[in-house]
Amino acid sequence: MSENLIINFTPTGMIPTKEMTEHVPVSVSEIVEDVHSANEMGITMVHLHAREPKTGVPTYKKELYAQIIEGIRRYAPELVICVSLSGRTFSKLEQRADPLFLKDSLKPDMGSLTLSSLNFNTIASTNSPKMIQDLAYTMRENGIVPELEVFDVGMVNYAKYLEKKELIKPPYYFNLLLGNIACAQADLLHAGLMIKDLPQNSLWSLAGIGNAQLVMNSLSIAIEGGVRVGLEDNIWYDNNRTKLATNSDLLKRIHTIAKAHSRKIMTSLEFRKKMNLNEGNGVYGLKV
Amino acid sequence: MSENLIINFTPTGMIPTKEMTEHVPVSVSEIVEDVHSANEMGITMVHLHAREPKTGVPTYKKELYAQIIEGIRRYAPELVICVSLSGRTFSKLEQRADPLFLKDSLKPDMGSLTLSSLNFNTIASTNSPKMIQDLAYTMRENGIVPELEVFDVGMVNYAKYLEKKELIKPPYYFNLLLGNIACAQADLLHAGLMIKDLPQNSLWSLAGIGNAQLVMNSLSIAIEGGVRVGLEDNIWYDNNRTKLATNSDLLKRIHTIAKAHSRKIMTSLEFRKKMNLNEGNGVYGLKV
Repeated sequence: MSENLIINFTPTGMIPTKEMTEHVPVSVSEIVEDVHSANEMGITMVHLHAREPKTGVPTYKKELYAQIIEGIRRYAPELVICVSLSGRTFSKLEQRADPLFLKDSLKPDMGSLTLSSLNFNTIASTNSPKMIQDLAYTMRENGIVPELEVFDVGMVNYAKYLEKKELIKPPYYFNLLLGNIACAQADLLHAGLMIKDLPQNSLWSLAGIGNAQLVMNSLSIAIEGGVRVGLEDNIWYDNNRTKLATNSDLLKRIHTIAKAHSRKIMTSLEFRKKMNLNEGNGVYGLKV
Repeated sequence: MSENLIINFTPTGMIPTKEMTEHVPVSVSEIVEDVHSANEMGITMVHLHAREPKTGVPTYKKELYAQIIEGIRRYAPELVICVSLSGRTFSKLEQRADPLFLKDSLKPDMGSLTLSSLNFNTIASTNSPKMIQDLAYTMRENGIVPELEVFDVGMVNYAKYLEKKELIKPPYYFNLLLGNIACAQADLLHAGLMIKDLPQNSLWSLAGIGNAQLVMNSLSIAIEGGVRVGLEDNIWYDNNRTKLATNSDLLKRIHTIAKAHSRKIMTSLEFRKKMNLNEGNGVYGLKV
């Protein structure tokens, strides 16, 4: 019997704008609405980025994350919620860690933790060793589980280092994101080597940038892995870039492929159990 | 017949201090002396870092590189000289590119070009896409050939991107440096995948951090690659760290292994020919 499929839904990110695609959710209500639709179709978790209400630019502010989380949990209290702690545009710990201080019904279950510095297409994303350790420490102290983000093969090793320093502990969830220009490429050897190197007791999803999203998602479904899917990583439905995708389009295609493989979608509750997360009905984050 | 062995000698770097090991050359005369000894034993090229005379801290200043280059070329005019353009402690293009503006008999043949941002043990090394492109452009305009530095598997892809943008052109020389904590690990699969992904018409050396230096050097000698060796990457002679190495110790061991493989050391002149560099007797850098 196949392992159930983790779908990590990533509706918006920091890059897509309304000018690039009208389908990207930017406001709190748009994001909440896309997450609810996705949750009805079937997803396991959501990876959230917040935006400033007037400008649509990315923000770290917990007040905005709180609005999104409140909106999602009103109708989907069990859905696993991961907040972005991205350093792409914010450089201070107090900024990046801000959403980790939400409490009770607004507390995120997980926070993203990129395991090194790297380059995207046009900018460097700096995550110093100290920043990574401080974020991991803050998550540990607040009972929030890291989503371990890996962009190149060697970054997996830093998770093993954090484990030795007892800043993280299993079970782990890894997001393996391939296809960035100066990072691991979306091919079988790069992906295969990352997966081979993961520590014991790791769940993982494959993600890809642009056209590589479908490639990475599809091969992951075939080999019993999870997927990260949504407009954050890819705004086009087709490789020739003739049709802008909606989050719903992308999710439907994943469901179609999963069905062809007889893979059921892993529920949030199943994922919560595997990751030692609270059941999600009023109590969130790591079980104590 | 075996391909001749590229020995890229890296005597000092930015990290080792006299407190860590008395054997590390820091002053201009110490560096020049170590390079001359190495050149007499047999090396192909030297990778230089300059230090401030009084403090021993790393510097980008071309005046100090000029003193080292002048000292080396007085007795070894043909030796291929690569200057470091590291961003580990300097963040501005004008600083990092400074040694590229040395002219005539002081002109370096090559300059290091790290192909992405990354983390070392305790600090981030930020090399934004713009910085990398600006450094590549400055080298191209000054007839200096990049030493392409790769720390993780996916970074090789950025060389292919720079090639498409015509910022670099073959033949290439890659320094593949494995064993950093958040980068490619010094194992056969990580090294093998990097090598497999290199563009056509590439020469390459394997380097390793600490104990991994001997591992990477030795396997590279076995598979017809080159080596980068010296105190910059490794200050110990043995894995148990009981004996501090000298540059001469490390080089002798490489010569011993090379001899066992019947591999001759590639001369600077052979390397110059393969890389389209001037003959090095008064005229340096890329042949026009």
